[in-house]
Amino acid sequence: MAYIHVPEGVPGIRSLVMYRPDTGQHLYALAQALLRNESPLSEAERELIATFVSAENDCNFCAGSHAAAARFLLGPDKILVDQVLADYRTAPISDKLKALLTIAKRVQQDARTVSDELVAEARHHGATDRDIHDTVLIAATFCLFNRYVDGLATLTPDASAYEAMGERMGTIGYVMPKPVSD
Amino acid sequence: MAYIHVPEGVPGIRSLVMYRPDTGQHLYALAQALLRNESPLSEAERELIATFVSAENDCNFCAGSHAAAARFLLGPDKILVDQVLADYRTAPISDKLKALLTIAKRVQQDARTVSDELVAEARHHGATDRDIHDTVLIAATFCLFNRYVDGLATLTPDASAYEAMGERMGTIGYVMPKPVSD
Repeated sequence: MAYIHVPEGVPGIRSLVMYRPDTGQHLYALAQALLRNESPLSEAERELIATFVSAENDCNFCAGSHAAAARFLLGPDKILVDQVLADYRTAPISDKLKALLTIAKRVQQDARTVSDELVAEARHHGATDRDIHDTVLIAATFCLFNRYVDGLATLTPDASAYEAMGERMGTIGYVMPKPVSD
Repeated sequence: MAYIHVPEGVPGIRSLVMYRPDTGQHLYALAQALLRNESPLSEAERELIATFVSAENDCNFCAGSHAAAARFLLGPDKILVDQVLADYRTAPISDKLKALLTIAKRVQQDARTVSDELVAEARHHGATDRDIHDTVLIAATFCLFNRYVDGLATLTPDASAYEAMGERMGTIGYVMPKPVSD
């Protein structure tokens, strides 16, 4: 049971943006711009970073739903999601993405511990300003989403719900749910 | 020196939203809605929560600027800011605000540790669903802003810069800075 009165049966952040749409609309617009607008990081890479940070924060709803979106976007390579979650340092992903995930982890834990050395390592493997910026903002944004979802104890559906959610996130993206009265 | 090329001499999050306005506009719109739209919490109380969370995250830019906004909004009671930062449990603020700051602290540390007991304590002192919701979302949002600002090592101005910043935040609110090319 959520700590406040949100629409019944609606999971995670969807129930919260329906509760307060005037703030919720900006959260959805941010997710859409950050995870779907043009970026040197592919949509799948961005969903992987979102999933990784959500898993580090132990947010089951966000980790489950963004893992499903990443799997949908990766298609035949969807096993990468579990490999990254098991240990990104040994997963078959690019050295650039590994260096960016290390930065994302520092942002999640304590952003002041991102260092010149970690940024130089990412650049050494081809990361640009935009790769670094987008990684930090994705990691920071999921530190918001994870806390919003868990701090109000919203509904976390069981494992069977995520595949359809991931397909929706991978196709139509982040679109505000309609208010309950519609 | 920031880790990426942002406009020179522009502090904190302003430099980042100028670097990437398509995400930045939603961050500013979120701050404006959350801290300035109608809420059972006064603007000063919301700025106090923002300041407290930023201080807990050791984000000097956000703590300094939002403390200045809270002082501007509190006017003759501005000493409350330092009293809350020293120890909110003994500060001369309402029991409701103390209970909400305890929830905000849990959200900042680990949102899964917000509990039925802490929410019941806040309700006992008069907190409504909207008080609890807004507190959790403000705390979560500053966990984003603090990480964005510090994870990219943006400019933190010296202490003399914040009073004017606080007056601007307390009067015109959160308005996107113009792009550099304007």
